[in-house]
Amino acid sequence: MKAAVLHKVRDIRIEELPKPQIVNDDDVLVRVKAVGVCGSDIHFYMHGRIGDFVVEKPLILGHESAGIVEEVGKGVKDLKPGDKVALEPGIPCRRCEFCKSGRYNLCPHVRFFAAPPVNGVFAEYVVHPADFCFKLPENASLEEGAMVEPLSVGLHGAILGGVRPGDWVAVLGSGPIGLMALQASLAMGASRVICVDLYDFRLKLAKELGASETINAKETDPVEAIADLTGGRGVDVVFEAAGVPKTSQQAIEIARPGGTIVHIGLGEQEAVPMNIVKMIFKELRLQGIHRYANIYPRAIKLIASGRVKVKPMITARLPLERVEEALRMPVERPDSTIKVIVEI
Amino acid sequence: MKAAVLHKVRDIRIEELPKPQIVNDDDVLVRVKAVGVCGSDIHFYMHGRIGDFVVEKPLILGHESAGIVEEVGKGVKDLKPGDKVALEPGIPCRRCEFCKSGRYNLCPHVRFFAAPPVNGVFAEYVVHPADFCFKLPENASLEEGAMVEPLSVGLHGAILGGVRPGDWVAVLGSGPIGLMALQASLAMGASRVICVDLYDFRLKLAKELGASETINAKETDPVEAIADLTGGRGVDVVFEAAGVPKTSQQAIEIARPGGTIVHIGLGEQEAVPMNIVKMIFKELRLQGIHRYANIYPRAIKLIASGRVKVKPMITARLPLERVEEALRMPVERPDSTIKVIVEI
Amino acid sequence: MKAAVLHKVRDIRIEELPKPQIVNDDDVLVRVKAVGVCGSDIHFYMHGRIGDFVVEKPLILGHESAGIVEEVGKGVKDLKPGDKVALEPGIPCRRCEFCKSGRYNLCPHVRFFAAPPVNGVFAEYVVHPADFCFKLPENASLEEGAMVEPLSVGLHGAILGGVRPGDWVAVLGSGPIGLMALQASLAMGASRVICVDLYDFRLKLAKELGASETINAKETDPVEAIADLTGGRGVDVVFEAAGVPKTSQQAIEIARPGGTIVHIGLGEQEAVPMNIVKMIFKELRLQGIHRYANIYPRAIKLIASGRVKVKPMITARLPLERVEEALRMPVERPDSTIKVIVEI
Amino acid sequence: MKAAVLHKVRDIRIEELPKPQIVNDDDVLVRVKAVGVCGSDIHFYMHGRIGDFVVEKPLILGHESAGIVEEVGKGVKDLKPGDKVALEPGIPCRRCEFCKSGRYNLCPHVRFFAAPPVNGVFAEYVVHPADFCFKLPENASLEEGAMVEPLSVGLHGAILGGVRPGDWVAVLGSGPIGLMALQASLAMGASRVICVDLYDFRLKLAKELGASETINAKETDPVEAIADLTGGRGVDVVFEAAGVPKTSQQAIEIARPGGTIVHIGLGEQEAVPMNIVKMIFKELRLQGIHRYANIYPRAIKLIASGRVKVKPMITARLPLERVEEALRMPVERPDSTIKVIVEI
Repeated sequence: MKAAVLHKVRDIRIEELPKPQIVNDDDVLVRVKAVGVCGSDIHFYMHGRIGDFVVEKPLILGHESAGIVEEVGKGVKDLKPGDKVALEPGIPCRRCEFCKSGRYNLCPHVRFFAAPPVNGVFAEYVVHPADFCFKLPENASLEEGAMVEPLSVGLHGAILGGVRPGDWVAVLGSGPIGLMALQASLAMGASRVICVDLYDFRLKLAKELGASETINAKETDPVEAIADLTGGRGVDVVFEAAGVPKTSQQAIEIARPGGTIVHIGLGEQEAVPMNIVKMIFKELRLQGIHRYANIYPRAIKLIASGRVKVKPMITARLPLERVEEALRMPVERPDSTIKVIVEI
Repeated sequence: MKAAVLHKVRDIRIEELPKPQIVNDDDVLVRVKAVGVCGSDIHFYMHGRIGDFVVEKPLILGHESAGIVEEVGKGVKDLKPGDKVALEPGIPCRRCEFCKSGRYNLCPHVRFFAAPPVNGVFAEYVVHPADFCFKLPENASLEEGAMVEPLSVGLHGAILGGVRPGDWVAVLGSGPIGLMALQASLAMGASRVICVDLYDFRLKLAKELGASETINAKETDPVEAIADLTGGRGVDVVFEAAGVPKTSQQAIEIARPGGTIVHIGLGEQEAVPMNIVKMIFKELRLQGIHRYANIYPRAIKLIASGRVKVKPMITARLPLERVEEALRMPVERPDSTIKVIVEI
Repeated sequence: MKAAVLHKVRDIRIEELPKPQIVNDDDVLVRVKAVGVCGSDIHFYMHGRIGDFVVEKPLILGHESAGIVEEVGKGVKDLKPGDKVALEPGIPCRRCEFCKSGRYNLCPHVRFFAAPPVNGVFAEYVVHPADFCFKLPENASLEEGAMVEPLSVGLHGAILGGVRPGDWVAVLGSGPIGLMALQASLAMGASRVICVDLYDFRLKLAKELGASETINAKETDPVEAIADLTGGRGVDVVFEAAGVPKTSQQAIEIARPGGTIVHIGLGEQEAVPMNIVKMIFKELRLQGIHRYANIYPRAIKLIASGRVKVKPMITARLPLERVEEALRMPVERPDSTIKVIVEI
Repeated sequence: MKAAVLHKVRDIRIEELPKPQIVNDDDVLVRVKAVGVCGSDIHFYMHGRIGDFVVEKPLILGHESAGIVEEVGKGVKDLKPGDKVALEPGIPCRRCEFCKSGRYNLCPHVRFFAAPPVNGVFAEYVVHPADFCFKLPENASLEEGAMVEPLSVGLHGAILGGVRPGDWVAVLGSGPIGLMALQASLAMGASRVICVDLYDFRLKLAKELGASETINAKETDPVEAIADLTGGRGVDVVFEAAGVPKTSQQAIEIARPGGTIVHIGLGEQEAVPMNIVKMIFKELRLQGIHRYANIYPRAIKLIASGRVKVKPMITARLPLERVEEALRMPVERPDSTIKVIVEI
């Protein structure tokens, strides 16, 4: 099979590799068809590492994927060849305290696509456990299937953030994850979502996807603007989806007393000066978000029922051969790119 | 002022009463404009009592209301004459353990419109505490304001029922409350809501309001039908909004293991044979719903943001003089009536 | 190995069976040492069935067990030969929606000790997955290890019931499960637990274990008595641990408005006339309890730290040869028996 | 009546003031008898301000109090002269969204004892709403009544922190609030509480009150020590009760993946460099704690039932005349002082 293999920083080669085989009875073989480009893929491609995860030998990137089932193991009952599936990229151990209590995203033994040394899915085929392959309904396309992954991050955040019907929400950072947090919040009944970003292009899309107001932080201070918009009260839930220190700090100002701040945006924030005194006086809750667990089925249902629109977020589609171009696009053309899909 | 006074069963007279006066600084005087007819109003009109609540002296019925502020007490800051408001009908004591912990709907000292001996709002004027008068936004009409009350019941049920995004829901009984439970569930992200009723007229409306499937229980057994529709799994949340023993029993069959049953429908069910063994094996949660607390602001936001549509549920509008006709209409014309609004 | 095999109703034979072998790398072989007698064991012994579970071929009963690890599979890291362990009796599929979301007690594919056709542990040896064998600390005995199972039922009930510090609690039925609910409630901070039963013997033990008040329902109406004791308010959480219709009904009277009823007691209650109207007016929550999930580690910690006392509940210890006597004892001597341990 | 009036920094005078009078029917007049010294009292005494709260005119300090009812308003039913009561010090507006939803500690209009310009209770008498005066049971003393206030802070923290039975807990900072967090955690079922402080005196008391292990951070790095004690897993809940940047940072290391950090300790931490990346990878929850709501009744029940022991925390008792000495004692004798009670 063809696969895109990262050999070293900014060096990906399309190679012919052996087609993977079903090993366990609960596995399925999937012909991968659509894979989204994520910021972590870009980071590995450009820097060769993310924190403790270092690319030390050739690695296949890509983890936001969907495809078509080609073969199923003997024990698989719910899938059959020809089924369209979205692939949840992390396989947990199923036995630790986190797996057994439903928070398998915290499993220390998880094997996650494209987290070195585990290969990802910029490749024609992959073998995956059937229970992490979720059947897409007729009316959902394969590229929508690939978008289930980033939606799951936003939806997991909105669920742990406790968005309630009628809530006011602010989203700081309106890239792919921020736009998913916007849509997940709307799907859970938020009556007002204020989106903030530095690019008008993204804010325009946010508006189309349902944002009630947008703020370009290059021109307007979001803390003051949101105080004005809410009569000084603040919003019920803030999503920090920019991954920079400044927005982490702004979130504490923007949340109403007793409100919640959802930290999704992963950047370099290892020492963000935070106003703990204010967090205490306002009795805020801060919730970190790491991937997701038990969210794929919900995310698929939201896409299939039309409550979340992911197609407008896809700004480019490129074939596997142009995967490096796909990986550079969000960085090189930030004012016209949200999500790039690699078609395989 | 004019008011519709119930003197005895099926005997309401339009009378001239003294216009009420603001007593406390936190009160407002409201010119009542739209009042919905509720099943409890009908019951008092036709039977003179509901359980321990007995009409022993002349009583003004009506508790689903909206109007226009005419005068405000000295301490009122958030309202001014001319504001359109929806009136939350129960005034709690503010001091008992239930009030202080946020569940003021359970306050034993609550004074609730049209719960004898407290008068309701089939009248031109009422004095009410400002913090139970919720300003309607420009784009919400007064009759929509009257509909905030039944929406609040359904929304309170959906919140306590814990509807989560992507959930499958069943609504047993698609009258006014059932249709509100449908809409509240959709607003909270339910991806599928199956509505059951005995009248095709109501099911047609359910479909228009977003039901994914409808079942006429006169023709089809809802337990079997929902088992089929869900591949034997059952739904995440069931609303019992019919208030009859049979649906209380069906709910236990229809809920998935670990699911929730929300009991809203109030009828004569003082001795419903319930399958407790099955409730235990499936580890079900049953949640009773009594009115609402802290829901009016959320309900208004859902109406104003277009997430919940209440206008299609209004099937007749009558002036105060025809209030008896309004009270009989849901009983006499069940196949064409959902909600009747009395215009004052 | 020796095992006690149920051939037909009231016919158990001690037989020599092949010693089981480790099959999977994640398994351990355990030398069973202590097994508690549960009501379900008694029911299978006396009636040959419980609901849909029918003893159709010879079956080993017993599921409340502890023993000593004799051998571990190659993949097992956290256990070694010689370790004392408590065995959680149900092995779920690890792949269905219930398993993955942390509620594996609802797994439709679970294999549970002594639920036909799966054998139990009235036997010298059993092979079990390592992650369902929980190491007992030095200061916990093997018979305490066997008691982890019924404690887990009570603790799961108290957690799902949401007992909060300072709460008032009532326990209807003070058998083994009721006494565990009592102790779990106290461990979670209940300031007052009122225990009800028909046997003074049990109530005396309840008092020793921390009940604030006890009521013998043969002499005193518990509904009236608890109304008196609580000034008419009722209690925050009621445990129905008797498994009879009357207590299910009483629970609705005894709970305070907004309170919770935990249904644990499994009996013949397939058609209990329940006052749904009152459940709605009081906005009660009823929670069914089916076994437990993720509770064994917590239960062991509560025993080891001395917060829960299980030894006083063990009223007899008999060798495997006298297992039939052990199974009859709770029925034949209800006024002196709580829990019987079979020593193997 | 006699009262201790702060005129300027370090200048308190015992003065004769008019005895307050009952104004509202729901008020009671209380003869204050015991008042604890809190860090905020000390701060006002020594610095004249805390953040935006500035002492601009003479102020009576003191807010942790209990006394004896001397007179009750006409509407008061649950109290009578002679009753011992603990006084909850904050009177909220009862009408804002926070009050009505049960989080009245966030009420922007709250009037709180000794928060300028509202007077506190270092005085012989105070008039207070009856529903914020909680009757103490026979077996609770007045000085225990004064200790209900700091216990309420710790208990509110343990409840919002979600301590569950069997949990492992760490308390960073073992002063009055930390020791209350310790005891509240134990009352809620924590099986292990590790206390950290800089003073052996406090750690010795922590041990007496139930801490499983103690760490003097002057000698041992608590992050490493707790990693060792928990086999690298970390604890379920961390209380930051020291109010210094370092412990806020340590908490992120000490919590297990998916764990909770409760921020109670109020200091100067307006810009604490926090590792947000780690907070996200571990999916931590941080919960700020501001006073308490609906906790007094629970705290009193925990003291009365013996689950929480507050007497060992009282290290000195001084008469009103020596209030300045009482205010200096925690600062001047940190190695022998936990809580000082002013007897009036």
